[in-house]
Amino acid sequence: MSTTAKIRGIFTPHMVPLDDRGDIDEAELRRYIDWLIDRGVHGLYPNGSTGEFVRFTAEERRRIIRIVCSQSAGRVPILAGAAEANVRETLAACEAYAGYGATAVAIVSPFYYRLGTESVYAYFREIARNSPIDVTLYNIPMFASPIDVPTIRKLAEFPRIVGIKDSSGDLAFMMRLIAEVRPIRPDFSFLTGWEAVLVPMLLVGCDGGTHATSGVVPEVTRTMYDLARAGKFEEAMTWQYRLLELFDAMLYSADFPEGFRAAVELRGFRMGRSRQPMTADQALDREALGRVLQCILADFGYAQPPAEGCPPKGGTVAPPADQVSLLVTSVVDELRKRGAL
Amino acid sequence: MSTTAKIRGIFTPHMVPLDDRGDIDEAELRRYIDWLIDRGVHGLYPNGSTGEFVRFTAEERRRIIRIVCSQSAGRVPILAGAAEANVRETLAACEAYAGYGATAVAIVSPFYYRLGTESVYAYFREIARNSPIDVTLYNIPMFASPIDVPTIRKLAEFPRIVGIKDSSGDLAFMMRLIAEVRPIRPDFSFLTGWEAVLVPMLLVGCDGGTHATSGVVPEVTRTMYDLARAGKFEEAMTWQYRLLELFDAMLYSADFPEGFRAAVELRGFRMGRSRQPMTADQALDREALGRVLQCILADFGYAQPPAEGCPPKGGTVAPPADQVSLLVTSVVDELRKRGAL
Amino acid sequence: MSTTAKIRGIFTPHMVPLDDRGDIDEAELRRYIDWLIDRGVHGLYPNGSTGEFVRFTAEERRRIIRIVCSQSAGRVPILAGAAEANVRETLAACEAYAGYGATAVAIVSPFYYRLGTESVYAYFREIARNSPIDVTLYNIPMFASPIDVPTIRKLAEFPRIVGIKDSSGDLAFMMRLIAEVRPIRPDFSFLTGWEAVLVPMLLVGCDGGTHATSGVVPEVTRTMYDLARAGKFEEAMTWQYRLLELFDAMLYSADFPEGFRAAVELRGFRMGRSRQPMTADQALDREALGRVLQCILADFGYAQPPAEGCPPKGGTVAPPADQVSLLVTSVVDELRKRGAL
Amino acid sequence: MSTTAKIRGIFTPHMVPLDDRGDIDEAELRRYIDWLIDRGVHGLYPNGSTGEFVRFTAEERRRIIRIVCSQSAGRVPILAGAAEANVRETLAACEAYAGYGATAVAIVSPFYYRLGTESVYAYFREIARNSPIDVTLYNIPMFASPIDVPTIRKLAEFPRIVGIKDSSGDLAFMMRLIAEVRPIRPDFSFLTGWEAVLVPMLLVGCDGGTHATSGVVPEVTRTMYDLARAGKFEEAMTWQYRLLELFDAMLYSADFPEGFRAAVELRGFRMGRSRQPMTADQALDREALGRVLQCILADFGYAQPPAEGCPPKGGTVAPPADQVSLLVTSVVDELRKRGAL
Repeated sequence: MSTTAKIRGIFTPHMVPLDDRGDIDEAELRRYIDWLIDRGVHGLYPNGSTGEFVRFTAEERRRIIRIVCSQSAGRVPILAGAAEANVRETLAACEAYAGYGATAVAIVSPFYYRLGTESVYAYFREIARNSPIDVTLYNIPMFASPIDVPTIRKLAEFPRIVGIKDSSGDLAFMMRLIAEVRPIRPDFSFLTGWEAVLVPMLLVGCDGGTHATSGVVPEVTRTMYDLARAGKFEEAMTWQYRLLELFDAMLYSADFPEGFRAAVELRGFRMGRSRQPMTADQALDREALGRVLQCILADFGYAQPPAEGCPPKGGTVAPPADQVSLLVTSVVDELRKRGAL
Repeated sequence: MSTTAKIRGIFTPHMVPLDDRGDIDEAELRRYIDWLIDRGVHGLYPNGSTGEFVRFTAEERRRIIRIVCSQSAGRVPILAGAAEANVRETLAACEAYAGYGATAVAIVSPFYYRLGTESVYAYFREIARNSPIDVTLYNIPMFASPIDVPTIRKLAEFPRIVGIKDSSGDLAFMMRLIAEVRPIRPDFSFLTGWEAVLVPMLLVGCDGGTHATSGVVPEVTRTMYDLARAGKFEEAMTWQYRLLELFDAMLYSADFPEGFRAAVELRGFRMGRSRQPMTADQALDREALGRVLQCILADFGYAQPPAEGCPPKGGTVAPPADQVSLLVTSVVDELRKRGAL
Repeated sequence: MSTTAKIRGIFTPHMVPLDDRGDIDEAELRRYIDWLIDRGVHGLYPNGSTGEFVRFTAEERRRIIRIVCSQSAGRVPILAGAAEANVRETLAACEAYAGYGATAVAIVSPFYYRLGTESVYAYFREIARNSPIDVTLYNIPMFASPIDVPTIRKLAEFPRIVGIKDSSGDLAFMMRLIAEVRPIRPDFSFLTGWEAVLVPMLLVGCDGGTHATSGVVPEVTRTMYDLARAGKFEEAMTWQYRLLELFDAMLYSADFPEGFRAAVELRGFRMGRSRQPMTADQALDREALGRVLQCILADFGYAQPPAEGCPPKGGTVAPPADQVSLLVTSVVDELRKRGAL
Repeated sequence: MSTTAKIRGIFTPHMVPLDDRGDIDEAELRRYIDWLIDRGVHGLYPNGSTGEFVRFTAEERRRIIRIVCSQSAGRVPILAGAAEANVRETLAACEAYAGYGATAVAIVSPFYYRLGTESVYAYFREIARNSPIDVTLYNIPMFASPIDVPTIRKLAEFPRIVGIKDSSGDLAFMMRLIAEVRPIRPDFSFLTGWEAVLVPMLLVGCDGGTHATSGVVPEVTRTMYDLARAGKFEEAMTWQYRLLELFDAMLYSADFPEGFRAAVELRGFRMGRSRQPMTADQALDREALGRVLQCILADFGYAQPPAEGCPPKGGTVAPPADQVSLLVTSVVDELRKRGAL
């Protein structure tokens, strides 16, 4: 078993502010970290998907962990994203992050190639055997090779593996996972990465979550967590419905995680321009999204409403079909390639 | 328009041999390059998906291009894979590769995140405007954000964009693309990355292909190309059927590109162990696959049959359902996340 | 608004017993209906997916509704599945079922062809305007054209449409639907068809559910419903975990709904052989499944354990990859056909 | 082996004209049949997907076959769609259609439920053993349970099974199928249902095709077939490109098969209104589509251009993302239901 305490609560997979040259804005990052801790997040999760880890160089990823660990200074646990190009590089990152003071590392399943379960197991086993620091698995099937229940069950036999962050958002999957692993590893931590259903996930037994939204309204996700922990699920659900409105607006109005960047700015941080370029149309959409988010955040009391006022409430943001179509395109080719026809 | 000649023929997205320490085996790589050129491939394509570019560090990727350009020494054109963590890094690679003597670069669509068409367009537009070297788009929807027909049409307006490699394998998609782009850019190159249907792709008008299989049996893919170019499609199809058997065995018996590594070894190269770890079961499967491949290659006359003999011909390698299931898992989560329900 | 009371609680989409000649076994069906009502189901839902409505002829479907209405004799409301080959035939069924005494009809979205939202809207609008009986929409995207949130919102403007059964199992989808429709139609009924997450669905605000599992263990689904209604969500979840084990075993061990037929037999009913033929291997699997189900039902106290005893508890039934692969195959072809590449 | 000749050439899955009351317009259907035969189709395929078989009653389906057999009067072979609610009903249809003079029946894989390979095999085996008439399998994975290569291989052992219509459009799948089955059943017929790639399919070895488009421009599909049979593949491809433009317009501008109905009307037949209702917006889209199709058909010389003229050529009809999204929605729910997460 691990020597650290069980990972519980809301861990924020925070973004990284950039300066005018597109470099890491260290001062703003430190200010953002302080703000998050002050508003009650239980932990920090740098170099996650929301943190755009793939858009930084290997050296920059290390610098981000150094800054976050130093700024947190032990106030909250740090779950450091440590995935690199291959096992050797990943283990080197684990070692470095342990030295910087991270509590544990989170390692996303191999991505780009879609690996089978055996390969995913072999990858994490190698890391589990050699990491000098506790490891949480990171299952985000929309971006990386999925990790299935039997594989997680087998990986839970390694004491170094202390938890899983699952971003699938599937309640029945989480229930099957908990039913399988908790009996043999009561210290194993189950974190959901899909805040659209955070309260139901806490109801089924999750220990907490890592949510991009907690980087925008940490007060709200903390409230939801505390209410659920106190057994007040129906009260927690009223917040869940409000969070869903914000979440859908951030998620479906721009390519991830641009909507979250827009929202963090409305909370008072200079996030800079994304390293992913935009067209002029996208820049306009971004401005329109800013106004929508401002209204939602004003409704929470976290922003002033825009001068031109807000529309009456109601209506949900429909996920653009275009996004779906693109995703499907990709899987179709993969399947055809794999001969699944 | 580009100043270079139109890209035509079979370009090999070759693997990179590793030594006992897991580092690039430069001598073996040079020997492999010579062998490929001697057997008639029209060009080389280092740092492609088959070349496991994501498993190397940024520095290693540069070294690979340096070695390949120097070894080719102008004998064949080099299409250098140049995708890095963000546009700035990618452009730096473009500049470096131009300096090493690459003919053009191939840049895969952004991966990990699945970006919408606008973002994909913005990304390539930024590169098209700033690259000092010709660029081919690389559409591989199973691994990266897809590039659709209208986006390719718009990107074809930039003279720096001189072609596309499409690994979707969809004939109708390729036909729609050719119908749309060829009239406005007769110099634009259409390369298929899906050798299971190479001959039909040449029939519909492709200029060539970039195929992992050409790194295993370059003689065969060259023959197929030459026959199709001569209008002998039915004769080319007899080779296509034989190639499909080999291709299916390499593709569906192990996680990509391990089956191709096994086959290249049978042609006489020391490829080393993959940077992706294996379980003991996988190692056994790899051995069994080696025997299957040896029989197929013996049938082509490129290997001795194994001592224990070969089974009678017939039967196809069914793509393992497990692989499909894993892939589906990933898309499902993505879709749910995107609220596509 | 409808003149009937709001539809609430657990409605059982029951199976239809067959005799030795493969015909409807009316006596056994009547006995089964009595048993379900006695065990506390709130309503009955004949001619649903579990009831294999597509495997009966149009005339048989009418006979089933006649029998169920006559046997229920007003003790519980009847939600009668009324989908036929086209709108004219469906409306004729609506009229007939109203005459038999059904409370409302449930109409599945058009299937075989996958229709777009406009067509789905046009189809249900035509029915809403002409049906002599209240209508609930039936959204089961895995089998029929999906009905999205905006379409349901527009259909909720017709007083004849009084509810929706959604079998997608997606909590966030249900939340978006409730957020959109409940404000304008407080009498509209939201029923989940996905019992794996029944308790979380009740937490987010569903009015009830229609679950195949309630035809096997009506006592359990009733208990879960009553506990959730009383705000005892955590206690309800302990039953949810047990139900999931049973559900997974019934769903993933045979093609739907064969596992449910096997389980109903263990509760003491002669269900007869399915109209879908079986291979010898499948018959063996069916026997093995019977033993697994007997152990689970014995654990609930609803069956004697098998003579050879039961294995120690634990472990989940993994959905067979084969099933997934088959499904995917189908969508892939569809997508390619639609040119989604 | 079957006593009938091998099925070869282009078989038209024709639509059924409806009169003002929505009933079968027998006179117009007979006129349409004559027209098709006169224009060179090799055979007819009533009660196919294009023929909207699921929107007719069981009795109407029989009447359609009676009319078509009587009108054809032996001039061309009839492949009669015979799928009914269950095996018993299907076999009754087989017997009836044999009596009406059909050459063979085509039976689509079970739909609505997605069955696994064992069930699909059991279903067709039962039919193969009992049918009094030759049977072709119909694989249309986008609408019905897919039939995979090994299952087709096993079913090919029954002499009554004499061919397969595959609408997947996947060339590699067709090649694997031919490689597997042709050696043991040289008389087995391979028909493609995906005319977007008809010429490539003939190149890889198909015996013919069953294409909705042949009900619109039978002259063109016949020309393509004849050119390919004569080895003139490149000339056939020029027609394939033109056909693709027409096909895309018919397929992606309305829910299937409405675009085909619009096109058949432009060839001079009164098809009546679909049994699937339309919204006012859809009716407008239908009119706009009519103008597009009129231009394309005018280009072929089969229609007068519209009075307002035609736009300059070029551009493809992009498949609407909405369609894709709907389809995906459905599979996602299915997968989640099956626990594939």
